[in-house]
Amino acid sequence: ILSKRIVVLSGDGIGPEVCQEAVRALKAVADKFGHEFIFDYQLMGACAIDATGDPLPEATLEACRTADAVLLGAIGDPKYDNNPSAKVRPEQGLLRLRKSLGLYANIRPVTAYDRLLEHSPLKKDRIQGADMVIFRELTGGIYFGEKGRRDDGSAYDNCSYSRYEIERIAHRAFQAAEARRGKLTLVDKANVLETSRLWREVVQDIALQYPKVLVDYLFVDNAAMQMILSPKQFDVILTENMFGDIISDEASVIAGSLGLLPSASVGDEVALFEPIHGSYPQAKGKGIANPIATILSAAMLLEHFGLQEEANSVRKAVDNALEQGVLTPELNAKSPYTTEQVGSFVAYGI
Amino acid sequence: ILSKRIVVLSGDGIGPEVCQEAVRALKAVADKFGHEFIFDYQLMGACAIDATGDPLPEATLEACRTADAVLLGAIGDPKYDNNPSAKVRPEQGLLRLRKSLGLYANIRPVTAYDRLLEHSPLKKDRIQGADMVIFRELTGGIYFGEKGRRDDGSAYDNCSYSRYEIERIAHRAFQAAEARRGKLTLVDKANVLETSRLWREVVQDIALQYPKVLVDYLFVDNAAMQMILSPKQFDVILTENMFGDIISDEASVIAGSLGLLPSASVGDEVALFEPIHGSYPQAKGKGIANPIATILSAAMLLEHFGLQEEANSVRKAVDNALEQGVLTPELNAKSPYTTEQVGSFVAYGI
Ligand SMILES: CC(C)[C@H](C(=O)O)[C@@H](O)C(=O)O
Ligand SMILES: CC(C)[C@H](C(=O)O)[C@@H](O)C(=O)O
Repeated sequence: ILSKRIVVLSGDGIGPEVCQEAVRALKAVADKFGHEFIFDYQLMGACAIDATGDPLPEATLEACRTADAVLLGAIGDPKYDNNPSAKVRPEQGLLRLRKSLGLYANIRPVTAYDRLLEHSPLKKDRIQGADMVIFRELTGGIYFGEKGRRDDGSAYDNCSYSRYEIERIAHRAFQAAEARRGKLTLVDKANVLETSRLWREVVQDIALQYPKVLVDYLFVDNAAMQMILSPKQFDVILTENMFGDIISDEASVIAGSLGLLPSASVGDEVALFEPIHGSYPQAKGKGIANPIATILSAAMLLEHFGLQEEANSVRKAVDNALEQGVLTPELNAKSPYTTEQVGSFVAYGI
Repeated sequence: ILSKRIVVLSGDGIGPEVCQEAVRALKAVADKFGHEFIFDYQLMGACAIDATGDPLPEATLEACRTADAVLLGAIGDPKYDNNPSAKVRPEQGLLRLRKSLGLYANIRPVTAYDRLLEHSPLKKDRIQGADMVIFRELTGGIYFGEKGRRDDGSAYDNCSYSRYEIERIAHRAFQAAEARRGKLTLVDKANVLETSRLWREVVQDIALQYPKVLVDYLFVDNAAMQMILSPKQFDVILTENMFGDIISDEASVIAGSLGLLPSASVGDEVALFEPIHGSYPQAKGKGIANPIATILSAAMLLEHFGLQEEANSVRKAVDNALEQGVLTPELNAKSPYTTEQVGSFVAYGI
């Protein structure tokens, strides 16, 4: 029996709706297994800017620092996107949070669900059985490098990686590959970028410590193609921040919906769990957002607490929803369920 | 009746084989229409390193500078790829060539051929009718920024864009959109990168001069997903160098084979034409390389010379090959034709 404090950052757009359903699932777990989860709601993103002027208020960061885990919905608002000169942006909150909490490894499992193969834009024979995990470096690279404008009006972004930044996530990815099917694919652009060459050097060095893992190297342009041509070739993918951002969103087409894909962001201390989808502002308040990605993120959170049985019970309840077609409109156009109905069905099945 | 000097950079791997077929097509055009094309073969890439130590020898660059057009096969050799500390690389030759010739706009048309829909990993209804052109900036961004190692062992790559670099390709892309279906999609990561915000600002400014063009903005992660989910939404895509590299290789799955996609790289002076595929070293000398991408690149070269009728006759001959199934193994597994057979069939049909 555990007592844990979970900070919930519902965020913007559909964030609050999907978080509510993940929390519902966690409460069902607590009830069933006799744990105590305390939910501490904090502001981050556009909602935090609106309330405090800061996308990541100090109180939020402090709450996260001392939490047992963080559950995040989504952040982002179009009013900031097409205003290139906006000084404060929701995304800064998320990036600062990842950096401040040291969440250097973003882990994104992607599976083709048998029940949902027809929803993928890809042909069935290409994706059936696809099952991979993407390890995306999350606190380095061009997202966090020095950026700005020069007097001549030009703009710059700097990309930088140290050996240490690469090593720590590489070890995690190799360990995952050992526990899975034993293959690791490094995605880089080592024929052009110096940072990619460093990634390749470090990974080649570390590979010697994992003789059972088969290592493969793909240039990111080729990887973006291979992900669609033959996704089953992938087991563990390891890559830097921006390539991971692109490749993992692309990989979501294999699952049939972005609304199914969870992620865990881990470091040496607290861990954060969030769906890979964004804040989808057009859907806000309509009850059409798919809560499953966030619920599955909650399952990863339970695993992180060491609660494997609990995590499995959430996953089984989700599988059941998939099987019964208790799904939001993008996956069940004919007789769609609302966000809350899907969440309740899952919670009830736990 | 024209007389033109075309520099041919056959390059590495399958480059020479596919170039031979494109040259065959150009010779057929010269014969039929009474033009004179002089082919000037020069070294670039791994073959140039092997011969001279330099991936882009001075003689090659000089020949290109004074040429009417350049036809390129492909460059790259695995012996350099997994050696992160190699000092000289084939790719440097290509990058230096692009920069030296000022080839700032790489134009990559992507079409779903009705005859080949079944070869795409994507479902037919998603791609039928897809028809887009990707404008990739080719001489700026992170590929050309300062890069190196620091004393602490870390590596860096700098990404930089000036307003001018964005403006000149943006104008070309807007003009293309005006002449097509009137839609332009800017792909960037303006929620995180300063260079992307500059791209968005400049494109927003320039859009005012093209009131008939509808402008859309997508973050690159979302674009990588949309490319597969609904490729028909795209008409003209405009993007920076690295995003264009990734997105255009990904888009090749729509056509059914990387071996079908040509490109033109243009600047204010000489222009270069090349297939988007790489040197595919495993296929070298086997007669299985698809020459169509290079032949279609030659068609773009003819258009660049103002020879529209000639370009059309090449395209018609290619269409005929597609229709008759005169295709290399990746597109015709049952009764495949060799590289040379496909090339001869096309040349014969001109
Ligand atoms: C919102 C944005 C900053 C973020 C990222 O690019 O990292 C998102 O796209 C993601 O993938 O988590
Ligand atoms: C070979 C490499 C440098 C090149 C690039 O990335 O530009 C290639 O991938 C391309 O797309 O033309």
